[in-house]
Amino acid sequence: MEKLKALERVEESFGKLPSVGKKSAERMAYALLDLEEDDLLEFSDAIKILKKTIHACPICGALTEHDVCDICSDNSRDRHTVLVVSYPKDVIAFEKADGYKGLYHVLGGTISVSRGKGVDELSIDSLLERIEKEQIKEVIIATNPTVDGETTALYLAKLLEKYEVNVTRIAYGLPMGGNLDYTDSLTLSKALEGRRKI
Amino acid sequence: MEKLKALERVEESFGKLPSVGKKSAERMAYALLDLEEDDLLEFSDAIKILKKTIHACPICGALTEHDVCDICSDNSRDRHTVLVVSYPKDVIAFEKADGYKGLYHVLGGTISVSRGKGVDELSIDSLLERIEKEQIKEVIIATNPTVDGETTALYLAKLLEKYEVNVTRIAYGLPMGGNLDYTDSLTLSKALEGRRKI
Repeated sequence: MEKLKALERVEESFGKLPSVGKKSAERMAYALLDLEEDDLLEFSDAIKILKKTIHACPICGALTEHDVCDICSDNSRDRHTVLVVSYPKDVIAFEKADGYKGLYHVLGGTISVSRGKGVDELSIDSLLERIEKEQIKEVIIATNPTVDGETTALYLAKLLEKYEVNVTRIAYGLPMGGNLDYTDSLTLSKALEGRRKI
Repeated sequence: MEKLKALERVEESFGKLPSVGKKSAERMAYALLDLEEDDLLEFSDAIKILKKTIHACPICGALTEHDVCDICSDNSRDRHTVLVVSYPKDVIAFEKADGYKGLYHVLGGTISVSRGKGVDELSIDSLLERIEKEQIKEVIIATNPTVDGETTALYLAKLLEKYEVNVTRIAYGLPMGGNLDYTDSLTLSKALEGRRKI
């Protein structure tokens, strides 16, 4: 049986994406064959220029196509508050939620004992520098509510003790639209702990 | 919030693939940002040359990178038997199964009332021509055991009545490794119907 090398190349590339297995990669490669030539060229080109066009903002680490991201250069935002997240994607999630008007700082990950990711691989120095130089009054830590995210949050909170900033952590609780029945007990007890007067 | 157009372009392209929703397209686009520049260039290039390199064999319709596919040009194969399938992918499935040594013919789909796909959109004329010109003795119809696949199989069988060929249909039955408990009743009754002496 003839090996279709051109198809295998595409399959291998798809296979490099997380959570795309051998079977999905194969299915997607075949699907490409059914696309129009124009769509393929567009796809090819979009991938090619992706990393040339998008890079991390040198100030906050969010993704941008400009020299400095639109958030860092927007003077109408609250420049006294910094929301610290692990990944550039998280910035977009908060922006979509549309409730936050301060600045961001992307760490580039979390401290991870299991994956051997250390403090020095995260953008912590640049965060401290920003706190010293900019008029930051509150640092909101919004790493994920996972073991690694919590470790990172605690580490940061400890580190920021000697700075004159309020350090807060986003709230834990029931996800909106969620169902009590399906909520794990840890979340339930966190939601109880964090209860407020209405 | 800044729109990352380069990222949106990639998302749109991923979104053109079947069974890739908005969320998966987004996830895959972000994953690309974590790949090495070399991997991205390879991905881009692989997609670009895909349809330029791979095309349908002019004889049988299977995918090939050569003028005529390896199966059609292989004289050691049984040239009296043609296995008729709907899609090029099906040829690869049978070749992987490794039990069939004859030739193939790809219809390019199935007759579909629901999707309005007619007989004239399938490579039926070229099949009849092959039966007339080549020394075909048996035509095995291996369209899917679905409504459309069955319709197509019956249509072909009727059409081939006036030719001097044996027309057969692949067997229905229990999938190997399957579980009686989980098998639908139609398959079960087909498996009973097709029982053989052991």
